[in-house]
Amino acid sequence: MSRQGQFITFEGTEGVGKSTQLANAARTLEGLGVDFIVTREPGGTPMAEAIRELLLSPREEPVHETTELLLMFAARAQHLYNRILPALNAGKWVLCDRFTDATFAYQGGGRGVSAQRIALLETLVQGEVRPDHVILLDAPVATGMARAQKRGELDRFEQEDLEFFQRIRDVYLARAAALPSRYHVIDAARSLEEVSDGVSRVLARLFKMSASL
Amino acid sequence: MSRQGQFITFEGTEGVGKSTQLANAARTLEGLGVDFIVTREPGGTPMAEAIRELLLSPREEPVHETTELLLMFAARAQHLYNRILPALNAGKWVLCDRFTDATFAYQGGGRGVSAQRIALLETLVQGEVRPDHVILLDAPVATGMARAQKRGELDRFEQEDLEFFQRIRDVYLARAAALPSRYHVIDAARSLEEVSDGVSRVLARLFKMSASL
Repeated sequence: MSRQGQFITFEGTEGVGKSTQLANAARTLEGLGVDFIVTREPGGTPMAEAIRELLLSPREEPVHETTELLLMFAARAQHLYNRILPALNAGKWVLCDRFTDATFAYQGGGRGVSAQRIALLETLVQGEVRPDHVILLDAPVATGMARAQKRGELDRFEQEDLEFFQRIRDVYLARAAALPSRYHVIDAARSLEEVSDGVSRVLARLFKMSASL
Repeated sequence: MSRQGQFITFEGTEGVGKSTQLANAARTLEGLGVDFIVTREPGGTPMAEAIRELLLSPREEPVHETTELLLMFAARAQHLYNRILPALNAGKWVLCDRFTDATFAYQGGGRGVSAQRIALLETLVQGEVRPDHVILLDAPVATGMARAQKRGELDRFEQEDLEFFQRIRDVYLARAAALPSRYHVIDAARSLEEVSDGVSRVLARLFKMSASL
């Protein structure tokens, strides 16, 4: 029986419960005896976290959309080559809070950057590397925003309006529909217990599949 | 008589006297009554200067060459759209300490990033924008390094070896040879007075040309 590391990303708009479900996923993998790391984008290494700070801090100077896009992919290059690929190559699973789907959704759908520009940078930075599986936590935008606002102060992205997040959700759902073997859409408007159950079931299935390879 | 802002960049390896010649160029333009700004790359706006800090600080984590390349162009996008283009559009001249030629020379020639990857990002960030003129201060690498070392502590780039800087000089000279109407190569191994004279003469000529448009 050979087992290989799986690269699994968690995606969704604000307030869908990504952090909670990453913690739930980690507990599930622990229960299955899987060796894994949990990481996040933008970030995941000291330098990538410094780039994240630059991206997320509210500032007076308007941030050009091309600057934002390139900083995202700069952090991603650092994260991918210094942390994600070494873990996968060592046979570990990688659970990652957001990845390139978020760039297509936020910079593409949200800010109107062309998908072609994003795809060009995706290939430049990642070559052929893509997540093996994407867990998409999906809920109506208003539901998620209400939850996010309860958490306190909003960062530069969360200050955008509902329409912005609706476009983001639309891109996520369209990408999932186009490649259903990679994307696992979880209805995140349900109770915490039901959402956690759904995520754990997906991971258990992926574990079985990887164990039988 | 119409006059338009000229975008003039200063390039060269370490210790060729770029800072001194930028100050000399500023005095020359002042004498000619030209409205201009002086700026630098990476940097030129608060956010781009913050990216510059990330790039130049020595750090334990190895910086992936793609990360370095994308950070350079992220800073450039911010600088170009928030500072350089607004100045040129207002009719000002722009004197800039390094621009994309430095990326071809340092990341391309120095680190071995393919010129094709750099050209792809150049187009993605700049569209058709290129410097109108490049003042290339050229001196044997050993001469420049000896001068740079006198200035004190070396940053992350200056710690590289002589061969690294030789490759950088080669790329600069090849680019200048390929497009002599844009590049003005100044022999920077001569006395300060002679170099300053050479730079001032180039600027006076560009001023006459722009005045007669």
